[in-house]
Order: sequence, then structure tokens, then C-alpha cells
Amino acid sequence: MIRPLTKAAFRPFGEVLEIEGAETRIINSGTCKRFHSLAAVDIHGENAKTIVSLFRAEPVRFPLHLLMMERHPLGSQAFWPLSGGEWLIAVASDHDGIPGTPQVFRATGRQGVCYTPNVWHHPLLALDAVADFLVVDREGPGKNLEELSYRTPYAVQVISEALR
Amino acid sequence: MIRPLTKAAFRPFGEVLEIEGAETRIINSGTCKRFHSLAAVDIHGENAKTIVSLFRAEPVRFPLHLLMMERHPLGSQAFWPLSGGEWLIAVASDHDGIPGTPQVFRATGRQGVCYTPNVWHHPLLALDAVADFLVVDREGPGKNLEELSYRTPYAVQVISEALR
Repeated sequence: MIRPLTKAAFRPFGEVLEIEGAETRIINSGTCKRFHSLAAVDIHGENAKTIVSLFRAEPVRFPLHLLMMERHPLGSQAFWPLSGGEWLIAVASDHDGIPGTPQVFRATGRQGVCYTPNVWHHPLLALDAVADFLVVDREGPGKNLEELSYRTPYAVQVISEALR
Repeated sequence: MIRPLTKAAFRPFGEVLEIEGAETRIINSGTCKRFHSLAAVDIHGENAKTIVSLFRAEPVRFPLHLLMMERHPLGSQAFWPLSGGEWLIAVASDHDGIPGTPQVFRATGRQGVCYTPNVWHHPLLALDAVADFLVVDREGPGKNLEELSYRTPYAVQVISEALR
């Protein structure tokens, strides 16, 4: 099942970045509205840096099969969509180092996510077209990437029905 | 004078975020291109956090007068434009705690900046229309904002000729 991305449903996995419901502050002599702290990016380890990158993702092909999940033990990772279209987010709880059944969320083009450190997630799932995302994550020493493939990929056939 | 925003010209003040010239990495089984580390966000102080916010800026009015500059001693601040249009960046060198003559750069809608900590800069200068920016900066204890007004505002009349 694909669910709409909401803060409440996504809480076990991280934060939803969206201006709806955000704390606002009027700054710069009234010329700017700050939607404050949509998410905090949590970086661990000595000599680690927080960096801003841009990811350009190919759109998924249907039927979609979720095969590989990854996680970042040493830092959270925030994504903000730049191309305006809807996108999918697949996350999973951890079971003794193994990702459980993926949970799939549908985000608007004005919603980002920030994965809590060590949360299993699928690589970017752009829909329809090549899509850019601004990404805030960690650079530094230490192993900050674990990847694991499901024994049997999860088919997400319902996507095409739900979205098209 | 307004100059186009380039990494070389902006180096004394911070980093230019742009995919041109960035290190690229193919990730996620070939489905994603990472333009790696467009900028590093440098956060200081105990119990400080790196946060992602969204700023919604009113467009400037012409003739433009630059009156107030600000700086953030405890952290860099990165801006990425979300609305696609050109925008202006005004920065200044420091002279014993006082900002010098502003230097003005024109950025495309696909260029961001990351101000080095303690670099004097003008609040957001959107052109033409209300514009959104994704912002990565610091939250935490301590005084991280200094504001200072010029005795006489700097008129930037050339803007309208240069851009329109």
C-alpha cells in the first residue's frame, strides 16, 4: 500500500520537510518569511562535515520492484525535491540488521524527507521524469553506508493504479 | 557594479553552489548522479544543530538601496533558490567590525551560495517575484546574528539597467 506522506506516519523513520504547519518567523525587516527548521540534520563522528549536494535521479520503471535498501549509521540525510513532481519514499524498520517489509509513501513536489540515522530506505524514487533533489548529508571518515538486498524483491504494482 | 556570480570572485565570502564543475558520482546502481558536496556547512558551538529551513523572500523594489548587512559568527549559511529566477547577492569585507562597501553578484536560478561564518551579507535579494530558498544554517545557544546599518545606504541603480 502506498500512503500519502504525513509527519505522523513518517515519524518512526524521520522528519517530513514541508512548510505546512512549520513555525514561521518574519525576518529581514519584514521582507522575508522564514519557515523555521523543517528538519534537523544529525551528523556524528569526529571530523565529519555536513555537506550540500544535488542528486539527479532517473525515474522508476513500472512495474516497480524494490530490491535494495540502504542506511547511513553516522548521519541523517535530508532530501528536498527541486523538479516539482511527486515522488515515492520507501523505508523499512530494522530487524537485527535486516530491513523489514518496505513501507511506501507518496510525496508531493513540495515535501522533502530527512531520514533519521540508521533508518533503512530505498534509493530515490522519482516518478515520470528525471528529477533533481537537494541533499544535505554527511561526509567524513568511517563507514556511513550499508546496503542490503532483499532475498525476493517487493513488487509495488499498486503504484501505477494509485498514481495514474 | 554587479558581477556574475562565479566561484573565483565569490571565494573571499564563501562557496557557490552549482552543478557545473562539481565532482560527480554515479550511485544507486546507476540510477542516480550525485553532484557531490556543492558546499560544506560549518556549524560551531556546543549543542548547536544544523537545520534546514525555507525562506520566502519579497522581491526588491527599484531603485534598490542597500542599508543593512548581517553576519553569523557561529555558522555558515547556505541558500539554494527554489523559484527559478535570477537573484542578487550582496556581501562585504569586514573592517574592524564594520562592513565595507557592498559587492553585488547576480546569480542564476540554478546557483546557490554558502556564506562563510562571519561574512557580512545583505538579506535575500529576490528579483521580479516572491521567491523561495532552501536554507541550511545553525540553531543553538549563543549569539549568531549581528546586524549593522550603513550610515548612508548604497544605491544600486545599475541593477535595473544591467538586468532589464
